[in-house]
Amino acid sequence: MQAKFLVIEGLEGAGKSTAVSTVINWLAEQGITDVITTREPGGTKLAEKMRAIVKDVDTEEPLTESAELMLMYAARAQLVEHVIKPALAKGQWVVGDRHDLSSIAYQGGGRGFDIGVLNTLRQVAIGDFKPDMTLLLDIDPAVGLERAKVRGELDRIELEQLSFFERIGAKYQELAAADDSIYCVDAGQNIDNVQAQIRDVLANHVDCHNRNVD
Amino acid sequence: MQAKFLVIEGLEGAGKSTAVSTVINWLAEQGITDVITTREPGGTKLAEKMRAIVKDVDTEEPLTESAELMLMYAARAQLVEHVIKPALAKGQWVVGDRHDLSSIAYQGGGRGFDIGVLNTLRQVAIGDFKPDMTLLLDIDPAVGLERAKVRGELDRIELEQLSFFERIGAKYQELAAADDSIYCVDAGQNIDNVQAQIRDVLANHVDCHNRNVD
Ligand SMILES: Nc1ncnc2c1ncn2[C@@H]1O[C@H](COP(=O)(O)OP(=O)(O)O)[C@@H](O)[C@H]1O
Ligand SMILES: Nc1ncnc2c1ncn2[C@@H]1O[C@H](COP(=O)(O)OP(=O)(O)O)[C@@H](O)[C@H]1O
Ligand SMILES: [Mg+2]
Ligand SMILES: [Mg+2]
Repeated sequence: MQAKFLVIEGLEGAGKSTAVSTVINWLAEQGITDVITTREPGGTKLAEKMRAIVKDVDTEEPLTESAELMLMYAARAQLVEHVIKPALAKGQWVVGDRHDLSSIAYQGGGRGFDIGVLNTLRQVAIGDFKPDMTLLLDIDPAVGLERAKVRGELDRIELEQLSFFERIGAKYQELAAADDSIYCVDAGQNIDNVQAQIRDVLANHVDCHNRNVD
Repeated sequence: MQAKFLVIEGLEGAGKSTAVSTVINWLAEQGITDVITTREPGGTKLAEKMRAIVKDVDTEEPLTESAELMLMYAARAQLVEHVIKPALAKGQWVVGDRHDLSSIAYQGGGRGFDIGVLNTLRQVAIGDFKPDMTLLLDIDPAVGLERAKVRGELDRIELEQLSFFERIGAKYQELAAADDSIYCVDAGQNIDNVQAQIRDVLANHVDCHNRNVD
């Protein structure tokens, strides 16, 4: 059985970091303990430097939307090349807190960049590499932002207008509808209920038994 | 008369930094003293952070060619938006040590990225913005590298193979042949001779007299 790359996606406060633990626990119950987690943007020394530039609230020199876009893909190139692909090659499972779908939703849906541009950047950065499955935590943007606020100070992106997150939420739903490897979870429910939904999707759609053993 | 954006291009050690002074002096002789200089990648707080990532010799986590490419354009987006365009709008002349042609020569000619990809990135980063004139300092790559070595320790890019710089030099020449706003200077000559060539190009092709004054 090959190691897989499982990704958690969703808006701020959707419960992604919480879901990563749920996935790790479920994998452990299946006997899979050689697992690494990643977060995007970030996850390597250089990618974390790019993350800092993206997250920083700098009022003197605002980050342009195009620089933000390119930094996201630059960080992803570093992470896929130096962390995700080597882990999978060694047989380690990878659970990602965000991946490419975030760029399509945030930079495409949120900022309005053309999908053709995004496809070109993705192709340059990571080629045809893609996750084996994506769990999309679907949440009302206002509810997610309320949860994120409780967590602490908001970063540059979390400080955007509600309408920005509404565009992103709509784009996420559109992307999920068009891709069989994306599974939607109603993240507006309480934590137990969300966990149960996640475990259900995993049980039904992640094959982690070695078919070659008799 | 409108302020102009003049760019100096060429390989490592071609004499770009030296040429910037020549241009500044020539402009001063024409009565133009409200001039700023830029360097790429870099020139803003955030762009200098990106420059540091690009220049750093990191043996643990090599910078991928695609991340390098995106960082170049992200840095350029910040510089054009926050420094070059505002300066020109205020009537300040801008003399640039490298600009977009470097990406086409280095990432296109040197690394082999497709011109269509580069055009997409440029369009996203800076739209149709372009210099009024470019001075290309044409130099034998080996001669340029010898000069650069004398200057001090080599950075990550300067440490590349000679064949890399030969591809870049060839691409620079090809680009110059196809664009009327690029003027070639034989930078293999001694400094006095190179300066004389630069002053000659400026005198013949940079209009800095106010035609509206009678
Ligand atoms: N289903 C849920 N109901 C209520 N609060 C939740 C739920 N899931 C997560 N939270 C809480 O909301 C906050 C944001 O969750 P987190 O997992 O950090 O979201 P994300 O990583 O998507 O931004 C945390 O304080 C978390 O404990
Ligand atoms: N025409 C020239 N002949 C010989 N040496 C030169 C010439 N132009 C510049 N140099 C020297 O070569 C080195 C590199 O020049 P520099 O202007 O820093 O190049 P660049 O900025 O293109 O890398 C410096 O030490 C400089 O003094
Ligand atoms: Mg989180
Ligand atoms: Mg220089």
